[in-house]
Amino acid sequence: MARVWSLQEVAQHNASSSCWVVINNKVYDVTDFLPAHPGGDKIILKYAGRDATAAYEPIHPKDALDKHLPPEKHLGPLDSAGTDVLKEEQAARRKTQDEIRVEQARARKRPINQILSLQDMEDVAHEVLSYKTWAFYRSASDDEITYNENRRAFSRFFFHPRVLRPVSKVDPSTTILGFSSSLPIFVSAASLGKLGHPLGELNITRGAGRTGIIQMISHYASVSRQELAAARISPSQPLFFQLYKDKDDKVSEKDLHEIEGLGFNAVFLTVDASLNGNRERDLKAPFELEAQERLLEEAQVAGKGEMPERPEDADNKLVEGELVLVGTSGGLRTTSDLDMSWSRTLPWLRRTTKLPIVLKGIQTVADAVMAVEAGVEGILISNHGVGHFAELFCSSLPPIEVLYRIRKERPDVFDKLEVYIDCGVHRGTDVLKALCLGARAVGLGRAFHFAQSAYGEAGVVQTVRILQREIILGMRLLGVTSVKELVPEMIERVDWQPLLSKM
Amino acid sequence: MARVWSLQEVAQHNASSSCWVVINNKVYDVTDFLPAHPGGDKIILKYAGRDATAAYEPIHPKDALDKHLPPEKHLGPLDSAGTDVLKEEQAARRKTQDEIRVEQARARKRPINQILSLQDMEDVAHEVLSYKTWAFYRSASDDEITYNENRRAFSRFFFHPRVLRPVSKVDPSTTILGFSSSLPIFVSAASLGKLGHPLGELNITRGAGRTGIIQMISHYASVSRQELAAARISPSQPLFFQLYKDKDDKVSEKDLHEIEGLGFNAVFLTVDASLNGNRERDLKAPFELEAQERLLEEAQVAGKGEMPERPEDADNKLVEGELVLVGTSGGLRTTSDLDMSWSRTLPWLRRTTKLPIVLKGIQTVADAVMAVEAGVEGILISNHGVGHFAELFCSSLPPIEVLYRIRKERPDVFDKLEVYIDCGVHRGTDVLKALCLGARAVGLGRAFHFAQSAYGEAGVVQTVRILQREIILGMRLLGVTSVKELVPEMIERVDWQPLLSKM
Amino acid sequence: MARVWSLQEVAQHNASSSCWVVINNKVYDVTDFLPAHPGGDKIILKYAGRDATAAYEPIHPKDALDKHLPPEKHLGPLDSAGTDVLKEEQAARRKTQDEIRVEQARARKRPINQILSLQDMEDVAHEVLSYKTWAFYRSASDDEITYNENRRAFSRFFFHPRVLRPVSKVDPSTTILGFSSSLPIFVSAASLGKLGHPLGELNITRGAGRTGIIQMISHYASVSRQELAAARISPSQPLFFQLYKDKDDKVSEKDLHEIEGLGFNAVFLTVDASLNGNRERDLKAPFELEAQERLLEEAQVAGKGEMPERPEDADNKLVEGELVLVGTSGGLRTTSDLDMSWSRTLPWLRRTTKLPIVLKGIQTVADAVMAVEAGVEGILISNHGVGHFAELFCSSLPPIEVLYRIRKERPDVFDKLEVYIDCGVHRGTDVLKALCLGARAVGLGRAFHFAQSAYGEAGVVQTVRILQREIILGMRLLGVTSVKELVPEMIERVDWQPLLSKM
Amino acid sequence: MARVWSLQEVAQHNASSSCWVVINNKVYDVTDFLPAHPGGDKIILKYAGRDATAAYEPIHPKDALDKHLPPEKHLGPLDSAGTDVLKEEQAARRKTQDEIRVEQARARKRPINQILSLQDMEDVAHEVLSYKTWAFYRSASDDEITYNENRRAFSRFFFHPRVLRPVSKVDPSTTILGFSSSLPIFVSAASLGKLGHPLGELNITRGAGRTGIIQMISHYASVSRQELAAARISPSQPLFFQLYKDKDDKVSEKDLHEIEGLGFNAVFLTVDASLNGNRERDLKAPFELEAQERLLEEAQVAGKGEMPERPEDADNKLVEGELVLVGTSGGLRTTSDLDMSWSRTLPWLRRTTKLPIVLKGIQTVADAVMAVEAGVEGILISNHGVGHFAELFCSSLPPIEVLYRIRKERPDVFDKLEVYIDCGVHRGTDVLKALCLGARAVGLGRAFHFAQSAYGEAGVVQTVRILQREIILGMRLLGVTSVKELVPEMIERVDWQPLLSKM
Repeated sequence: MARVWSLQEVAQHNASSSCWVVINNKVYDVTDFLPAHPGGDKIILKYAGRDATAAYEPIHPKDALDKHLPPEKHLGPLDSAGTDVLKEEQAARRKTQDEIRVEQARARKRPINQILSLQDMEDVAHEVLSYKTWAFYRSASDDEITYNENRRAFSRFFFHPRVLRPVSKVDPSTTILGFSSSLPIFVSAASLGKLGHPLGELNITRGAGRTGIIQMISHYASVSRQELAAARISPSQPLFFQLYKDKDDKVSEKDLHEIEGLGFNAVFLTVDASLNGNRERDLKAPFELEAQERLLEEAQVAGKGEMPERPEDADNKLVEGELVLVGTSGGLRTTSDLDMSWSRTLPWLRRTTKLPIVLKGIQTVADAVMAVEAGVEGILISNHGVGHFAELFCSSLPPIEVLYRIRKERPDVFDKLEVYIDCGVHRGTDVLKALCLGARAVGLGRAFHFAQSAYGEAGVVQTVRILQREIILGMRLLGVTSVKELVPEMIERVDWQPLLSKM
Repeated sequence: MARVWSLQEVAQHNASSSCWVVINNKVYDVTDFLPAHPGGDKIILKYAGRDATAAYEPIHPKDALDKHLPPEKHLGPLDSAGTDVLKEEQAARRKTQDEIRVEQARARKRPINQILSLQDMEDVAHEVLSYKTWAFYRSASDDEITYNENRRAFSRFFFHPRVLRPVSKVDPSTTILGFSSSLPIFVSAASLGKLGHPLGELNITRGAGRTGIIQMISHYASVSRQELAAARISPSQPLFFQLYKDKDDKVSEKDLHEIEGLGFNAVFLTVDASLNGNRERDLKAPFELEAQERLLEEAQVAGKGEMPERPEDADNKLVEGELVLVGTSGGLRTTSDLDMSWSRTLPWLRRTTKLPIVLKGIQTVADAVMAVEAGVEGILISNHGVGHFAELFCSSLPPIEVLYRIRKERPDVFDKLEVYIDCGVHRGTDVLKALCLGARAVGLGRAFHFAQSAYGEAGVVQTVRILQREIILGMRLLGVTSVKELVPEMIERVDWQPLLSKM
Repeated sequence: MARVWSLQEVAQHNASSSCWVVINNKVYDVTDFLPAHPGGDKIILKYAGRDATAAYEPIHPKDALDKHLPPEKHLGPLDSAGTDVLKEEQAARRKTQDEIRVEQARARKRPINQILSLQDMEDVAHEVLSYKTWAFYRSASDDEITYNENRRAFSRFFFHPRVLRPVSKVDPSTTILGFSSSLPIFVSAASLGKLGHPLGELNITRGAGRTGIIQMISHYASVSRQELAAARISPSQPLFFQLYKDKDDKVSEKDLHEIEGLGFNAVFLTVDASLNGNRERDLKAPFELEAQERLLEEAQVAGKGEMPERPEDADNKLVEGELVLVGTSGGLRTTSDLDMSWSRTLPWLRRTTKLPIVLKGIQTVADAVMAVEAGVEGILISNHGVGHFAELFCSSLPPIEVLYRIRKERPDVFDKLEVYIDCGVHRGTDVLKALCLGARAVGLGRAFHFAQSAYGEAGVVQTVRILQREIILGMRLLGVTSVKELVPEMIERVDWQPLLSKM
Repeated sequence: MARVWSLQEVAQHNASSSCWVVINNKVYDVTDFLPAHPGGDKIILKYAGRDATAAYEPIHPKDALDKHLPPEKHLGPLDSAGTDVLKEEQAARRKTQDEIRVEQARARKRPINQILSLQDMEDVAHEVLSYKTWAFYRSASDDEITYNENRRAFSRFFFHPRVLRPVSKVDPSTTILGFSSSLPIFVSAASLGKLGHPLGELNITRGAGRTGIIQMISHYASVSRQELAAARISPSQPLFFQLYKDKDDKVSEKDLHEIEGLGFNAVFLTVDASLNGNRERDLKAPFELEAQERLLEEAQVAGKGEMPERPEDADNKLVEGELVLVGTSGGLRTTSDLDMSWSRTLPWLRRTTKLPIVLKGIQTVADAVMAVEAGVEGILISNHGVGHFAELFCSSLPPIEVLYRIRKERPDVFDKLEVYIDCGVHRGTDVLKALCLGARAVGLGRAFHFAQSAYGEAGVVQTVRILQREIILGMRLLGVTSVKELVPEMIERVDWQPLLSKM
């Protein structure tokens, strides 16, 4: 392993029979790993015998190579000549139009104190993120629909604000699963934070700690769980864990063991999205994003009516292969557990961990009732996973609508477990609406992604402060001084659709 | 008949008193046929004494001349000088703007593996089809409304997706009238396929066979029934036949005899559109399209505010004649049966054929119940025929809405016969919605037209694969593993109108 | 009276103390008429001592001067020198931009046989009418709302088309107040037809006669009642009369006497619009249009942000005067009867005429019931009058909605008298919808204005033929063969709003 | 105090340790006032040692300096050299783009007699107001939503106009709290009128007097209460007072004592907006607007994607400071009473004043009932305060909707006290709709701001006349002759959303 390698030596291992790549000036033999790469071998072979750092870095946590590649495949460092060549190549590379645009946007980014709403924050993120990252976070134009429909759903709920009630002292704090939270909000799982900011999800952990709210950490965060746990403001800062259950129970048991050891405080079992197209991308995101980015690029090119150069047979191969595969498998990946069930999975999870259990991805009143019967501590109503998949959006009720149906049909659910929602929240009033209907707290995912992408940890803090101001102001306008006073009588679903700006 | 003819000889028969035309270098005397041409004599006289191949070819099946013109009117071949002249004229002809556009579009057509949705496929078809063909398939801009309203109707139905159900194994197959189908979809009748691709409906027959779905063949396909039957992947590949009943029972009995002999498996009797403007065009389409294209051209010119050159008296004549005629007849054609009835037509059809009978074009709960009482095997709810007629669209309920009314008012219908819908389907989720409400299968017509126009048989296969992937993914997200599990409790009609993209 | 006058002589009577005008080379002393001119004296004084033909001609019927000016004020002809001067001035006048535009549009007007819908007809009218006339007919842009809302109302009603019913023979004829009509439509009152075409309302009388439908003639038609009666195709062609009741009963009695003498067949008493801003303009239109056109011009100029030159004090005067007056009177004119009542007016009308009586302008179920109790022969539900007044539109239900409420709340009304609607009809299907709900017939006003403006009598005929074709086709698609079979079960009001084109 | 000061002397007091400013050529020592300035010290320090007239003048009433600065801080006049310098500087100052635009717009302002609707008036105001003032009055683009939603709410209410009722004599007058009003409208509180016109709220007082309607004067008018009271047309012209209660009862008691002494006739206690962002701006507006304008400028610049020059640390400071403060306090100001209650505040107010009491800002049926039980004389339903705060708008029901709910759920409220609404009124028909539902009168705030900004007192009069004309015409069309006859049967809320122009 102490040997050093020249670029010429590496370059000879440029095929599936022997495939080496350079990452951060170190040489790795990934030949045996090729078939095991969840994103497929093609995306690796593209870099066979070459430097893959730029593609690898922003989407893999630090411990990914150690976890997935045995020590003997860590071949050792590149020689200094090779290092110099790569450095020169990097320096000589001409910036793309998009990179230039991003640089300029970052240079004239408005001061953070001018960010007065979550929309402002998103606007800045849009300005300073690369096209690809923005497309990943917002799922490009199609997702606009999801986003808008969730906003439209909130806008159909109107308040009944009460007057002449003393509101000089307002306390917006609450508890979530028994843990204190300065506001009735939490960070919903968000992966691939490093695409937006070098520190990635760390910014969120720190910002959440500083402002007293709780973060749910993505199963596939781009920062390792250890680093995130170590970034807590104090040992008592709560952390929740989002679990994608593996079809091999033992793999998930190892995950749960790890996060319990790190002091995490609750498990959010994802029950909706493990088989969803884009969810899969999150699921296997560190390895898949490269392939995805290529698709994005193609889609982008195709969208403009320009045809990317490509050999005809490659196309044909894809026709016969890829889509058929996806078509017959529905995008199934081998590692996620598609056979979870109420009768088997939940007892297993209860046996495996002592942590409180929340089901993430409930979308119907019937399943909310099932969750009560299963005895979990909470449910998170969400169409986030589905939402990413634009084609299905119009078929999936916005979470606030599901919450409304639980309130109307089975209000007893709210007495038996904690109910949360996420998706589409962009104002403190949205949070208050959910609380009036019975939610304990409201999750925000993308908002914190945008915030940390735009301003790092300060952006996360600013986002919480904006929501804090809006929530407190909203409570005063409603005539309440604590979240307990937010009751169904204070909200009404109207029969018309308000027009929204920015749509 | 062995005689050869010069262009000069042909040119002398250029009037209604003696009218000859050249088609594929053969000379025909159509003088006696002039009054019998359902599209009127004018469109033929336009080519009197001249070559008519370019206008005739793409809309008539191969056996049309044999069927409609007695042998003695097949006068024989053009001489070689004439053949050369026509070839030269063809070569010398300057391409139109639209032809140039189409050529360029075909050259940079995106690879088929980039086609990820039916919208993508339609977009490519739009790019590569001539203006006239696109206008025929989409019925120009007015029809945009039909299309959009049908999409909007689907978007008002939302799923109730269930979680924690084992979905690793999903089987989307079903049977239609007892015949196996790999997916709960079928090809709805679509005519004039050769306008979009030289092989026309053959592409669909082959693609359907390869992917295990069933094709309903248009009464007025641009490929003959014999050729289509012969194109089956295997003798057991099922084929359905769309029947426009003739007012002369014997004509239709001959049709039914023919398709039974060819091994077709069911009859879809069109009950709604035999008197509809554009339906009539389909009905007599091989003979009428030329006239229609002229109208299209005029409409196009008129739409731009430019006045086509035309003698004033021709206009006056049309005022006095054509519209009055249409006005008093409602577009009636002499051959279609406008006096079909429950009491006479269905018993006749049952006596005439042993094949299963489906009524195509049911639009009300009341007629669905009538169909049950009449003992037919199935009904196809459709506003396709009406949909073509833009003026009536806003008056005709989208099929998914009719299906919903049957579910609410007369759910027993679903136990007595098979119910299908078509129109407006553009996603696998649309199919699943119809199945949740009680439909057995969902037909797609235009989608397959677009697909074969854009990529031939491969386009048809790709379309099925896209739907397959979306249906399987959708079933997993809903928590079901077979189409039987798709039940009304899994769907809800909401009281707001989601915004759609591309509208 | 035989004396001839020079322009110089006329020119000396250019003040309110002595005011002469020249019309068609004849000289009139209108000094005493000045205070009696319902449009105010200013508009006349503008032409004092000058030729007023161009302003007078297109809005006054031929008999207006005889009716309103005593014989001794008809001073006699202009001398030949003056006639020549006026002719030269007319010839030398430079055409306005708008006149040039209209001339060009008329020259390249599309052939009438290309007019396939009422929208096509309106489009041509828009092209060939002067800005001012179009503005009067369409009430400029604001009225777009009225028009659209009425169309949107129709689009919320969907058919339940029945199949397998013999429809080869369809009879769309009906009777209106016992008079035969080839279609269930009639011409609703429309005034100032000469603005659009030199023959004005005569085109409509003739076209209606030729196609077998009935015309309701406006109280303030720009062609005299005698001429219209004389233009009937046959003496038995029915004519209806629209009455604006004068506050002096005797004036209206004289009107009724006149039209009875001319053989009119029914009286439509306008009950809604006699005090409406724009209705007033119709009411006194022949005398007011000049003033109105000046306002239009100003509004047009003001709309462009350009300030017309005008003395400051004139503005101030208007502030103090005109608007205050209008403000306190609500636009009240001295001659219209604002105090009509069920108890007084209807008995008076019944006593005064033997003709059938229809109340034009009913807008509520309650007044429909009142009409039944008052024993009139029919009611015309309309927001036409109100519709002209854009500010009130959003407050006035579209007639099809009022009809729907009568059907739901008091269906017995339809058994007691005939119910008609007008406003917003642009398709044969709109007519059928109204008939399904219980209407006897449907009126079209503006559509015939546009038609005669664009193509004269031929345009009127073409409009009827288009509707005939659409009505017959629609009846076939619904499965009915006579208007009697159009029943409420065939229509449904949906809870969503279809999108419309051209909006 | 008789001493004169040079600009050089003043210039030395340019820090927080000693801060002098020049206003209207007089020198003031505001050092001690700095910490007490509700708008913060920064905005004053910006002008420390300099002339502050241009910033101070348009937002402070004449008596502000006397009220807030002790006599010994009025240091005396600037010397004549200094006066000359300031005059020259003023003359030499280059006009901004916006100032030039405004000047041009004022020069070509259309004559007032062309203003035929409130929309016309607003359009002119938009043209002639500076960007900043328009942004303040309309709260920039976001507020467009509020405005549109309130208009959309009115448009969902349709009339049932009755016919054949004598309407020649119509009386639109009413009483409000027993005081005569020529129309069922009043001026709702509007502050900072001098921003739009040098005479500010005085224009409204005079215009209201001339037209016989009643003005509610803003607690924070830019003209002093004394001046406004003195501007009354006659001593009997009623004036209402809008009270923002101070947390120190004595401060408010002094206010009430003052306005009683000036002959005001009623107190409108603001119960909703004392803690609202923009309401706060009104509350402390004279002192805060300068700061606000800076924010506006920044927002404007930021909106264009240009970054204003500013030291980095200032930004950071704001992040740590300002937003946290706002975030934790919800925008709380120390002087407004956030602890008002039914049990304490209303008895106090009743004890303190003999004037009739109206609660301004009721938004629910429940609080309307509470108001009845509390025995107040009236309630004003309003989302004006909330409306200014765009983020909350979609959560606050339009007043006409709240009125409708009171009518449906608790019609007895209308018998116990007077009910008013404001917000979104732009037509006489809007007023009539509210009256049909039970409102006594309708307030307009912004409309009068726009009117006086555009045309001074004449604009106010014109606005009343437009509404008068529309109200009288509307009453005639409805078939009523007095406001008493406007009853719930005359109005209906429909289930569709009409399209509006100008949206």
